[in-house]
Amino acid sequence: MKRLRTIHMSVGYDGTEFCGWQVQPNGRSVQGAIEAALAKIGLRDTAVIGAGRTDAGVHALGQVATFQTDSKIPLRAFDAGLNTNLPEDVRILRAAEWPRPLHARKDAREKVYDYYFIQGKTAQPVLSRYCWTIPAKVNLERAAAALAVVRGTHDFSSFCASGSDVEYKERIIEAASLSAVKTQHPLFANVDLYCIRLRGNGFLKQMVRNIVGSVLSSGEKQIDAQTMQDILAARDRRRAGPTAPAKGLFLMQVIY
Amino acid sequence: MKRLRTIHMSVGYDGTEFCGWQVQPNGRSVQGAIEAALAKIGLRDTAVIGAGRTDAGVHALGQVATFQTDSKIPLRAFDAGLNTNLPEDVRILRAAEWPRPLHARKDAREKVYDYYFIQGKTAQPVLSRYCWTIPAKVNLERAAAALAVVRGTHDFSSFCASGSDVEYKERIIEAASLSAVKTQHPLFANVDLYCIRLRGNGFLKQMVRNIVGSVLSSGEKQIDAQTMQDILAARDRRRAGPTAPAKGLFLMQVIY
Repeated sequence: MKRLRTIHMSVGYDGTEFCGWQVQPNGRSVQGAIEAALAKIGLRDTAVIGAGRTDAGVHALGQVATFQTDSKIPLRAFDAGLNTNLPEDVRILRAAEWPRPLHARKDAREKVYDYYFIQGKTAQPVLSRYCWTIPAKVNLERAAAALAVVRGTHDFSSFCASGSDVEYKERIIEAASLSAVKTQHPLFANVDLYCIRLRGNGFLKQMVRNIVGSVLSSGEKQIDAQTMQDILAARDRRRAGPTAPAKGLFLMQVIY
Repeated sequence: MKRLRTIHMSVGYDGTEFCGWQVQPNGRSVQGAIEAALAKIGLRDTAVIGAGRTDAGVHALGQVATFQTDSKIPLRAFDAGLNTNLPEDVRILRAAEWPRPLHARKDAREKVYDYYFIQGKTAQPVLSRYCWTIPAKVNLERAAAALAVVRGTHDFSSFCASGSDVEYKERIIEAASLSAVKTQHPLFANVDLYCIRLRGNGFLKQMVRNIVGSVLSSGEKQIDAQTMQDILAARDRRRAGPTAPAKGLFLMQVIY
């Protein structure tokens, strides 16, 4: 019997032109692009598993993808080799052979998501591809206080998109922060760039975007910490705020 | 006789999907997009002039566009009003009424161009849309010394693309620098981002990209300061290095 190797790949992509991570009948998916590139280097019908099934428009700097193969082709084929066969908006950043079988999604202990936004200005087009512009009147201190409420172990039903087939909706959020991003890059010269970072053991469908959309809701409707607690306790998606746009969201890191 | 107003607009765009600034028979141009948006708010057949005729794929954070009109519609129509009629990859950042007639290109005293690049790594797709990745073996100190040669008044024929119909090729470069860009943005966490900035009274066709492509040429062929002087003195495009990709170039500022 041939020995099965487990390959662990770190993957970056610009999600703008993808229907998401997962293969869909008529969509251009990241998973589909990687499987097609694997076929081109001789590994036909290889199922690639992603740690996070990111939605359409969501980006990744540190997605993890795994697959198993009995092929003996050198590891180099799985970064440089795949990259020559992949479209420019997805890159294999690193490929490594894992010492034991690894399932990218089921074995992930924690994931880190970043959500980037700027406030109040007409955004430069080269910025607005990768961040959301929110109204000036959103109070960021109140947003940070509301965000802090999600830390810990909670049933996140109120922040789970309808259509999810997941039954068990308790997740642990280890860290939740809202901070200014300091940069001398002239791209950000006249704007204040902010980042909401969430680290947790798992995320429900559109959970990050629903949390961000809730804490950054504006004006009269802006949610404070007490209201955020009430929303969480209600376990009802209709109680939370709108879903923040996909373009500000990045899958940053997956921890095993 | 109606009074002619001169409108001065600051314009940002992502050049990736444009054939460049200037209207072309079968291309999607920035100028064309702005003129079409002006038509939609009632200003048909208005000629918009850009300070820099950026090429296909070149971005802008601070392009300047001017036009004249006898319309009395409020200034607000020329930023918010135009933006609702423009595609997402171009935005009017500010619109102002200029106290005297102004020709965006002919009256420009100086322009600032930035060229962004990173070195040696497989670039994140969300980065590679806006910067060039160069080989690790390029010596950046030598590149900076070669770059310094372009400061001052020179005939830049060696760095002018063929097909330019400009006859007088002397230009003054007031500043030329190569520097590291410091940022805490996680997008740049594992890469070294650099910027070549040029400020001058005028730029020939593809001049910035030809200078950048020359000073960042790699390996045996890497150009030193003496060779750069020889190239400049030769006034012959064939002597200089390759043209750097458009995607790293940004028109940053126009000074009147």
